Order: sequence, then structure tokens, then C-alpha cells
Amino acid sequence: MSSTESFETERVDRMRHTLSHVMATALTEMYPGIQFGVGPAIKDGFYYDVDLSRVKTKNNEVVKISDADLPKIEKKMRGVIARGFEMQYSEKSRAEALDWAKQSGQDFKVELINELPEDEVISFYQLGDFTDLCKGPHIVSAKEVGAFKLMRVAGAYWRGDENKPMLTRIYGVAFETEDELKEYLERIEEAKARDHRKLGKELDLFCFSDLVGAGLPLFSPRGTVLREMMSGYSLSLRGASGFEKVWTPNITKMDLYKTSGHYAKFGDELFIVHSQVNGENFALKPMNCPHHAQIFASRPRTYKEMPVRYMEATTDYRDEKSGELGGLSRVRSLTQDDSHVFCRKSQIEDEIKNLIRIVRELYATVGMGKLRARLSYRSDEDKYLGDMSLWEMAQAQIKSAAIDNGLDFFEAEGEAAFYGPKIDFMAEDAIGREHQVATVQLDFVQPERFDLNFVNEKGEKERPVMVHHATLGSIERFLSVFIEHTAGWFPFWCAPEQVRIVTVNDGVLDYVSEIEDVLKQIVLDKPLKYNELRFTTDKTDDSLGKKIRRATSMKIPVILVVGPKDMEARTVSVRLKDEEKTVDLKSLSDFLKALA
Amino acid sequence: MSSTESFETERVDRMRHTLSHVMATALTEMYPGIQFGVGPAIKDGFYYDVDLSRVKTKNNEVVKISDADLPKIEKKMRGVIARGFEMQYSEKSRAEALDWAKQSGQDFKVELINELPEDEVISFYQLGDFTDLCKGPHIVSAKEVGAFKLMRVAGAYWRGDENKPMLTRIYGVAFETEDELKEYLERIEEAKARDHRKLGKELDLFCFSDLVGAGLPLFSPRGTVLREMMSGYSLSLRGASGFEKVWTPNITKMDLYKTSGHYAKFGDELFIVHSQVNGENFALKPMNCPHHAQIFASRPRTYKEMPVRYMEATTDYRDEKSGELGGLSRVRSLTQDDSHVFCRKSQIEDEIKNLIRIVRELYATVGMGKLRARLSYRSDEDKYLGDMSLWEMAQAQIKSAAIDNGLDFFEAEGEAAFYGPKIDFMAEDAIGREHQVATVQLDFVQPERFDLNFVNEKGEKERPVMVHHATLGSIERFLSVFIEHTAGWFPFWCAPEQVRIVTVNDGVLDYVSEIEDVLKQIVLDKPLKYNELRFTTDKTDDSLGKKIRRATSMKIPVILVVGPKDMEARTVSVRLKDEEKTVDLKSLSDFLKALA
Repeated sequence: MSSTESFETERVDRMRHTLSHVMATALTEMYPGIQFGVGPAIKDGFYYDVDLSRVKTKNNEVVKISDADLPKIEKKMRGVIARGFEMQYSEKSRAEALDWAKQSGQDFKVELINELPEDEVISFYQLGDFTDLCKGPHIVSAKEVGAFKLMRVAGAYWRGDENKPMLTRIYGVAFETEDELKEYLERIEEAKARDHRKLGKELDLFCFSDLVGAGLPLFSPRGTVLREMMSGYSLSLRGASGFEKVWTPNITKMDLYKTSGHYAKFGDELFIVHSQVNGENFALKPMNCPHHAQIFASRPRTYKEMPVRYMEATTDYRDEKSGELGGLSRVRSLTQDDSHVFCRKSQIEDEIKNLIRIVRELYATVGMGKLRARLSYRSDEDKYLGDMSLWEMAQAQIKSAAIDNGLDFFEAEGEAAFYGPKIDFMAEDAIGREHQVATVQLDFVQPERFDLNFVNEKGEKERPVMVHHATLGSIERFLSVFIEHTAGWFPFWCAPEQVRIVTVNDGVLDYVSEIEDVLKQIVLDKPLKYNELRFTTDKTDDSLGKKIRRATSMKIPVILVVGPKDMEARTVSVRLKDEEKTVDLKSLSDFLKALA
Repeated sequence: MSSTESFETERVDRMRHTLSHVMATALTEMYPGIQFGVGPAIKDGFYYDVDLSRVKTKNNEVVKISDADLPKIEKKMRGVIARGFEMQYSEKSRAEALDWAKQSGQDFKVELINELPEDEVISFYQLGDFTDLCKGPHIVSAKEVGAFKLMRVAGAYWRGDENKPMLTRIYGVAFETEDELKEYLERIEEAKARDHRKLGKELDLFCFSDLVGAGLPLFSPRGTVLREMMSGYSLSLRGASGFEKVWTPNITKMDLYKTSGHYAKFGDELFIVHSQVNGENFALKPMNCPHHAQIFASRPRTYKEMPVRYMEATTDYRDEKSGELGGLSRVRSLTQDDSHVFCRKSQIEDEIKNLIRIVRELYATVGMGKLRARLSYRSDEDKYLGDMSLWEMAQAQIKSAAIDNGLDFFEAEGEAAFYGPKIDFMAEDAIGREHQVATVQLDFVQPERFDLNFVNEKGEKERPVMVHHATLGSIERFLSVFIEHTAGWFPFWCAPEQVRIVTVNDGVLDYVSEIEDVLKQIVLDKPLKYNELRFTTDKTDDSLGKKIRRATSMKIPVILVVGPKDMEARTVSVRLKDEEKTVDLKSLSDFLKALA
């Protein structure tokens, strides 16, 4: 959920917040001397950061809380709840508040109180014997905290600062009903089973190498097929809508970003490429718009050829802290399916409609057709560049395009980029998680910066508007979502290995050749054109069961089992994910084409 | 021609060398006080580097020689030749030689004599009144110098050192006969007209941007089609031979090249990529073999899956001096159509045969089927790594594969890389120039360095051999050759715009729609499969003549002219490069398919 959506504090969030106090109450009783940091409600639950440095064992060692202690703490929490306390609100003066914190040995609270603004109301909530500095809000009765479960213990620096003490963070999840909690826990389990890092290894899609480095995935043949099918589909959708492929190098002189304005904003995040031969410095490109603008600017343009639409599937590099890299979700090498339209102001709406249509078609095809869109507009702040009238016209065109396309959208003022308004799309996956996916962004600034123009009907120079668009976004990030969305059971058309023939014995090999000849002729046309069938044959002398298990573990969508009976009847036994059936050899081609 | 082919000094080279003395004789008479650097025979001609700093005009200004002076110098040379001098050989002691150089005011010769080894014979050649320090060889009579022409004047640092004086280099070309000279000069003119930098701009294939930098071409839509057709064809040929596509990032930790051994050899030529966020350094990859080796190593392998064949079309970066960059011939961003085979020693010959077949098919298709191959073997030197028996076996397999394929090859001992023997292919273009193109290289070293292995029939670990292969080489460099080879008249199948419909007037637009419907259905299958026709329609109200000229200037292979008579007869008037004909609409599809 975007941070920009405002909402009243939901009841469930108040329940979660109260649960952090319930947990603190339990911990205070279990670990005398425990100190508390902060304990907020978060998405799906709550946590509390605690410091145990003053809590000692009988042998005078500092006590530690680990995952093994969670059932005990949870039990204690249920005891606290059973007592039927109510949350008591009170206010204290600064002096009283500091006195309370010092008396109860809560050094972190002392720090927090000292940092409160002069005129802030200092509020407290009391639950049974446990009192805490807290802004609320809470539910009234501790009995109404709903269903919860403690999940895990982690380390967290006080205030996120690695120079401050490391506290112990105890996470819990909580929902209004037991059913919701159960469903959530099942979803967590399901998500674990679908983890794309795990499936990436099991299905031999990609790998990492310590010698190459973190955040730099290498794609093996199966993963490369998947990349190319998705990227090819995205390119084909855009190609059919007038986009032309271009090609640009991965590096550029800094001058390009100095002119575009990116250097001033992001210069210290760029990967610097140093030439040892000339001593010159380049940048590894983190985006492609300035490169594409150079192609537009490479020769004179007239209104007759507007709009000019470029697309490229190219790898950009963004620097990230090593600790933040994981699987394909966050990588240093991002392959963008990037598009840039250079159009007239009057053409904005049509171009946006075109792009919305492409986005809806692609996500419907991959089974993530439930899209929400955020239309981000400017606010009254003066940080936005470009004419106010241009903004208003463009925002109206965006909204009109969204309505015309029947988009499920909401509007967010003040969320536009400084260079223009935009649309961000959110897609829901098979287990209900929402992911930010495609974007469409207008840009009034780069055309100015690069002095882009075309000659209009009057023979005058006119400035185009740029539209930035990514359909998949980064292919790597999209695949991280798509692998988990499908749990590795990829749709037939894009599965790395679509069909595996499994032989019962060597007596059927001639017949298998006939089947292979049929498969070699198959070319799928939907959703991606001219997609030749990818199949293999397992002729090993392993048992049939072992062969089938091997194919199933690779989540191959179609297994064709061929035995003597099939040969005699000129059929094949087809095993799909959830179905088995017998198909005539004569009908096999049509059968497979219908799966795509 | 490779520098490694040894040859006796050809007569024509002796003639060229003598011509440089003829030119020096003429210059001495024309510019008293002139000093001489070196004046060798070179490919197709000769030059002499001269210093004019002591040659003054009447106004006491230093004389300059420019291209405008060449006819005058050439005339004087013909006068020298007409005198019928013979070349006189003589030897001098070091003291005599120095005395000669100082007396004749030849400071550069003083420097050359001083640097000659102690025991060197110091030889001179005299032509008329002009004597020069010279090793020869020459022809005897100046009358036999053949046909020549002075071409241009350029600056050249003495001994190529930018800290030394800038001399004036005068270039000439020379051949045994006037016919050969004429043919050469025509070829030069033809090459100028075909210059891929000129055509790249005229045909809107690629551009450069000062903001992006030298050696970093950006490909516009037409050039991108060409890139993708060639790269796609190369991939499809290899794909049909068992190669699987992989994908690797453009950067890597240095550790990869330290392990592979490349860092020790080429570390100071790498582009260094610096992370400002983490302070870490990466390298921009200049080749892909170590990355591919990491994918091979990412999981256990058995003999059953050998050979493993990877391919990738990926952009490598090589640092070059800015002054050495030009068009697509020499770039910093090289997209390699790179392949790596991991195979058993016994599989080397089959793999090489496979690759030779692919190379021959590709170059035959692009009209450069006249290939020569150099088989590079090791010598007795001890710089080569890997077992002698392995080398001998591999060299025998290479030769056997070359013979079996009927290759036009020659063998070059001592030309192998330190890590294994190789084949280099040279292809001849339409105007007789030979270009180094594809390579096949064995590698015994990287599998060791990366400890690559597979489990063999005995359950033991066995070391594979790597075979490096590039079919096109760098796509950019290939295109520089291919654009000049075709003079921009690309074969129908790969032309960026294959067909342009040109209308005579708007009365035919309905009929044009019918033609467009026919064209939309066309999918070419050769040499690249599933190649949808790329066509446009020129419906502007420009005159027919102007429309045709516009299409011809873009070198579009097929222009379909559609007028009222065509509409009535249900035909189209087809204009090919050298042919015009009328084709029935019914036959149009077959006609175009036959062009591919």
C-alpha cells in the first residue's frame, strides 16, 4: 500500500498497537529491569524493541530472548488479556514525564521525552501495572485485541542508527478474527514455498556467483528463455502500437546527465566508470531517457513524424547497499523494458490511452489483471517545473484516458514528479499481495534541457513532451513477482521447457520420433507470435515413476507419457498440472496450440 | 594481411621503397635544407617523413607542404625517374656515416646512426645526387618504379612519440602497372562512396552524441533492425546447433578476472566501475567467458549433458584512446555474438566442425562466402599452458575439422594464444578487401582456473575444455564491414525497410489498402525464420518522381509504385535496385518471398 494514501486509524491497527502494550506488560513481568524502545502497530501486526542489558540470569549473564521464548511470552500475553484490563489515558507535564521515565529506569523513554517539542502534549497509556509514554490510539479493552501470534525475534539498532545500541525486536502478527490470522499464516507459508530465490535454484533459472558479486544475477538457459519470452511479449505489444526499437550503450559521459539535470539530483548515486587509458570518467546508465533523447535530436524532425516512439530492453545499473540485495527483487543490474514517446501536447491523451491498453493487456495475459492505478498530480508547492497551464491540460488528459479505459484509479495530489504528472499501476498476485508494476510519466523538463524540437505546420520550432513508460518495469523484479505469482508453474506459452516426452521403454522410440516430428512443426501464435515449441525427450533407462517425478519437479506444464499401448493406439498420455488425459497423435498439435 | 605471414620482399615492395628515395631526391632539389626521417615501403605504397623547419620562404617563414603541392612534387619525381639513375649500394664505417649525416645536415639520421648496434653493417643507397642511410632492398633502375601517385600529406611525430617533433609525412601509392594503379584508385573512390560513417548518417542507421561520448554509437530504429536481424540470424544458426542463450550482467567484481587470470594480463586496460555507495570497485566486462564459466559451475554436471553450449549477444566494453575511435570500426561498446562450449576432449573435433559449418553458412548468406582460415598452433616456446599431449591432440582435431569442411586454410605455428590453439577466419568484401571475422579458440586454462568439472562414466571428476567462438565478432564492427560491403543496399531479408509503397495519386488509396493487407500477411522464412515484412506507404502529395527518389536514396530494396493503371489491372509496378517489372497482386506475396 502506498504511503500516500491517508486513512483514519483502522480499528485493527489500534488493536495491533494495544497488543504491543500487552506484550510489554507481559515482558515487564517476565524480565524485570527490561527497558523499552518503541512499539508501534505495523502492516499486519506490531513489534516492540526492547533492551535486556539490565536483565541478568542467576549466573549474572545478560538474558537473551530468542524465537524459542516466543510461546512462553505469548502465553503470558494471553494471561494479561484474560485479566480484562482497560487502556487508561493520561497526560503528564514534561517534569512529571521525565520523573516517571527515570523512576521506572526507562532510559530510552527519557531520550524520547527530551526530544519532544516544547508545546507537545505528553500522553501516557496504562494497562494494568504497565504504563507507557504513547500517543495512541488504542482500543479500550485489552480483551478486544483480536487474534495474534508472535513471529520472530530480530536485532534492530536504536533509532535505526548503527552507532547506537542494538535492541531486540519482537514481531507479532494480529488480525480481528482467528480466521483472518489463519489465512494470513497460510499465506506466509505459501509465500515461503513460492519464494523465487528457492524456485530460481530448483528450476535452474538463475544463479549468483561470489566472484561476480551480490545483486548481479546470471541467468541460465531456462531463466533466459523466461526473460526473453516476457521481454519479447512486452516488446511485441509495444511494437504493434507504433514503438520502434533503438539501441544505446550502457555508459555515457557525465555531460549527458549534467545536461539532463540527473547529475545534480543523483550524481552521488551513479556508478562511476573510470577509463584507465584516458583518465576520463563515464557513468553506467541508471536510466535510458537521456540516451533516447539524443537519438531524437540526431536529425531534424517535422510534425508529420510525431509522435516518435522508441523502445528498448536494456540493462541499467543502480547502486545499492550490499545488505539490501536479495534474489531478483532488488538487483544492481536492472533490465528495463523502457519506452519513450516524443509527442505534441495535443497527442498526450492518445499516447496515454495506448500505453494503458498495453499495460492492461500484458497483466491480464500473465494472470495479474486486477490492476489499480494512482494518478499523481502536482500540488500547490512551487517545486514543480513547467507551465501551470501545461500541467493542468496534461492532468486532465491523463484522467480522461484513465476514465475512458475504465481503469480502477485514485488520484493523489502532490505525488507527481517535479517534471510532470504520472500514473503508477499496482497489480495483485495469486496470493493477494499488491506489487507496484508499470508506470507512465509525463516529462516537460527533459525536452527543455536537451532543447528538443520539431518543425510544426507553421514552419516554427515546437517543443515536444516526453512520455516515459515501463510495462514490466525491471524484468528482474517482474520475474521475482511472476515466479512467486505462478509458484514456478509458468503459463504454457512462456514455460522454459513446455513439453517433456517420457518413454516407458525403448520399444517406443520410433513412435517417439513421430511425436517429435509433430512437435517440431508447432509454432504458437498467442500471446507471442512465432513461438516454436520447446521440448525435450527423456529416454534414460530410469523408471517411469522417476522420470515423471523428475519432470514434475521441474514444473514442466505438459508431460507426454509414451508406452507400448499408446504406440499401438497412436495416442499419447498427457499429464498437465491438475489433469491427465489421452490425446490422439493426430490431434496433438491442435491440443497443444489450444493450451497457449 | 596478418603481420605473421612471412614473405620474401616482393618486387613491388622494392619498387615502392625506391619510390620513397625518388621522392626524397625530388624534395631535396625542391626544398634545400630539408631533413629526412624514415621513408619505408608500406601496404600499397610508400611514404617519407620530412622536416622543413630549416626551409624558409623569401619572407623568412618556414615552408609548409600541403596536398596542393603534391602535383608539383609528383612532376619533379617523374623528372628524376626520366634521368634513368640506378640505385648505388655502399657501406660506411660508423664515423664516416656520422660525418655524412652531419655534413648533409640530417639530424634525424645522426640519431638513427647513433642507435645502430655496434656490429651493424651501415649501408647507404645513392640515387643521382641523393644519398640516404638505408637497409634496402631496392630495385636497380629508377625507371622501373612502376605506376605511382602521391595521395596526401599528414602530420606524424618523429618515432611516433608525441614529445618529439611533428614531421610532415607524404604518402604515395604505387603498383607495378598503370592498370593496377587505376584499379586501386577506383577502389579507393568506391570505398569512399561506401564509407559506413557516411552511409550510417544518410540511411539513418546510427548516430553519435557529444554528450554520450566518442566510440559509443546510438542506433536509431533502422540501424537497430539491422543489428537485430544480423544478431538474430547468428543466434538462430547457433540455436539450431544446440546452443542455449544465457544472460549475464555487464559488470563484475574484480575477483572474477583475478581468478580467470585476465586481471594479471589486462587489468590496467579495464574500465573500472566505482560504487560511490559502498566504495567497492567492479569491472565493466570486456569479454564473457568467465561469466559463462560461472553459470556452468553453478550446479553439478555429468557427462550425459556434455557438451554444454552457451551463447549470448551482449555488450562488452573495451577502453580505447579517443583518437583511435571511428564510426563502427573501432568502438568502446562492442556487442559480441559470443559462444562458449564446455566439452570433453574427445568432443573437440565435432564441436569445431559444427562451428566451422555455422561460420561458412553465415558468411555465404551475407555474400562474403570467400573465406580463408588461419589455424594457429603453438611453437616450441614455453609460454604455452596446458599439457603438450593435449595441445597435439587438439591441433590434430582442428586440422582434421578444417580438412573435412573443405576450408581454404593455412597453418601458422607460434600464433596460438597461450591458453590454446585457434582458427581465425578472414572474409573478402565486395571490393576485394579482406577482413578478420569469426574465431574459434580452444582454452585449456580457464577450466583449470575456475576448477570446472563434470562427473564422468566412472564417477570421477573430469575437466572440460572450453571453446570460445564469435560468429559475427562484434556486431558493430561487422556492420561497419557489411554496410561497406553492400554499399547500403542490404539484402532484402535484413533491410530495415524492405518495401515502400509509393502512390501516384489519392485515387488509388483503397487499392493500396488491399496491397497493404497482402504485405501484412507475409512472413519470410529465410535465412531467418518468422521475419514479418517491414514496409511503409508514402501517401504524401509530393510528385511521384520525388517519392521515388526519396525511396531510392534510402536504398529500399523494393519500391511498389501504384497508379490508376495498376489499380485497374490489379498489378503493382515493382522497382528493384537494377530492375523494373509488373507483378500481379495475386503473385505479389510469392514474388517477395522469393527475394529473401
